[in-house]
Amino acid sequence: MGQPQYIIGIDLGATNARVGLISTNGKALDIQAKTLPTPRKPETGLQTVIELTRLLLNQYKNLSIVGIGAGVTGPVDRLSGTVINPYTEPAWQYTPFTEPLHETFDLPVVLENDADSAALGEYWQGNGRGAARLYVVTIGTGIGTSFIDHGKVYRGLDGSHPEGGHHIIDISSGVHCYCGMVGCWESLASGEAFQNFARRKAAEERGWLKILSANDIQDVNTPAVIQAAQQGDQIALQLVQQEGYYLGVGLLNIISMFMPDKIILCGGMARYFDLFEPAIREVIADHRYMVPAESVVIQTDSLDYYAGVYGAAYAFLISQQESA
Amino acid sequence: MGQPQYIIGIDLGATNARVGLISTNGKALDIQAKTLPTPRKPETGLQTVIELTRLLLNQYKNLSIVGIGAGVTGPVDRLSGTVINPYTEPAWQYTPFTEPLHETFDLPVVLENDADSAALGEYWQGNGRGAARLYVVTIGTGIGTSFIDHGKVYRGLDGSHPEGGHHIIDISSGVHCYCGMVGCWESLASGEAFQNFARRKAAEERGWLKILSANDIQDVNTPAVIQAAQQGDQIALQLVQQEGYYLGVGLLNIISMFMPDKIILCGGMARYFDLFEPAIREVIADHRYMVPAESVVIQTDSLDYYAGVYGAAYAFLISQQESA
Repeated sequence: MGQPQYIIGIDLGATNARVGLISTNGKALDIQAKTLPTPRKPETGLQTVIELTRLLLNQYKNLSIVGIGAGVTGPVDRLSGTVINPYTEPAWQYTPFTEPLHETFDLPVVLENDADSAALGEYWQGNGRGAARLYVVTIGTGIGTSFIDHGKVYRGLDGSHPEGGHHIIDISSGVHCYCGMVGCWESLASGEAFQNFARRKAAEERGWLKILSANDIQDVNTPAVIQAAQQGDQIALQLVQQEGYYLGVGLLNIISMFMPDKIILCGGMARYFDLFEPAIREVIADHRYMVPAESVVIQTDSLDYYAGVYGAAYAFLISQQESA
Repeated sequence: MGQPQYIIGIDLGATNARVGLISTNGKALDIQAKTLPTPRKPETGLQTVIELTRLLLNQYKNLSIVGIGAGVTGPVDRLSGTVINPYTEPAWQYTPFTEPLHETFDLPVVLENDADSAALGEYWQGNGRGAARLYVVTIGTGIGTSFIDHGKVYRGLDGSHPEGGHHIIDISSGVHCYCGMVGCWESLASGEAFQNFARRKAAEERGWLKILSANDIQDVNTPAVIQAAQQGDQIALQLVQQEGYYLGVGLLNIISMFMPDKIILCGGMARYFDLFEPAIREVIADHRYMVPAESVVIQTDSLDYYAGVYGAAYAFLISQQESA
């Protein structure tokens, strides 16, 4: 057996960058993370990623590194290596990404959508192992989706990445999304949606601010509301119930459309799955007639914040196998 | 070249049965159709299908017939050959289907969901030819969906048939479906939904009955409303606009979730696609930001009412190729 080989796995979200050294057999040697500096400029994400990569390469010298896999908040153009249109990070529109990485480190680079790379991570080394049809939902600032069909990322027409997070669940809701539509899943069930609903509630009931230890509406955030719910606060519990309900409707639609073996929830909001689960299960139980929805396993990821790093490394690995 | 071989293709819906003799290279020798007698009993569908098959076999003697493919209003259990739970035809719950056909005609029988067989028909001999990712929506009494991914029927967990027709588009609508949910696509955009909305309108505005040449609310049906819309009647045009809108929302969700190369609409309501198309296109245009939705071709089927017959024959053909 020769020296182990490593891949640099990059996960660049709208808020955080994570870079890891992952062995080709799926073990993490080290993962470094950094919150992105503000204000964002077109080069902010790329520079942070380069900085973290340099840090790792200086710390672990003489490793055999075969390439770089990068999962970036999408949509991305995998072929041109460009971040196209991240509404969650408008500063990065049409930013070349793989080319500067390649030039800096003289390694081959493969670009993936961050939702797809997180899904690949769970499929490779996480709770998704062995799931023939694995649907992964990343519930963070927005909602990203990815479908791994028998070990391969499902891609749409011209290699496009479907955006299940923007399918409409409640067109009568009156809630507008930047995607142009009303009542899409992300507009109602994402972390940002949850925070927006909470802030609206705080504006209506100013006394609630004190319970959240908030001075102002702008201080109201998800962790504070979750903590209040855990302490039995009724307003917070209602918001949690609503979040579980909206999550449940979207998950039910995924079940109706795909009947996957497993759905894995990841991203910041998935950390509170225990709180949302009763409402999610209730919505799904209400609609058990047309498809055997109760057979679909729904659980959270097992790689925590690092699924994207593992998956980006795996995306590089399988791209090499496919081109071999 | 030997004598051509034929497959008996069966399409059994909730209202009509169609049986055809289809050559293995996809040409129809003859197709017979019959409206199912009422009241429905468990054996109604099966007996009608057997009757039509006998008719064809008596008319075309000495043909080389290799087997039977049957598409039946679902869900069906393909492995046991049983029609499980057709909500659109409750009389047929848990009705064995392939076994009696096999015993009667001494031919191998393959069972498919009717939505899948219609989709296979369009993929084999219709407008879906060559579409790598073909999504077919049958808009009849209900809404059935089928996804043909690179020439194969997409099947969910345990071979289940996804029911895209029951994904929720408007949970605030207050419209209940037999599937147990509120505001699913079928409850708002199926032929039955269209008729229900029209009858509700007629109950509100009794004067409208005269325009439809209807004596009573129960006489109000889709063809009458469509005709009124074609003649410029404002109420009918509003209903057509609403139908196009709801169809558009569901189609948009399919696009967001699958990004297929092509969506084919078939079934009774698809006959009026020209009328619904402006509203459908408007909804899709409103949501063009996240995915390249405008690249997805949306058109009607080209095999008219016979897609299911062709597709059932094709389902038999590919099952033989797979087991060969």
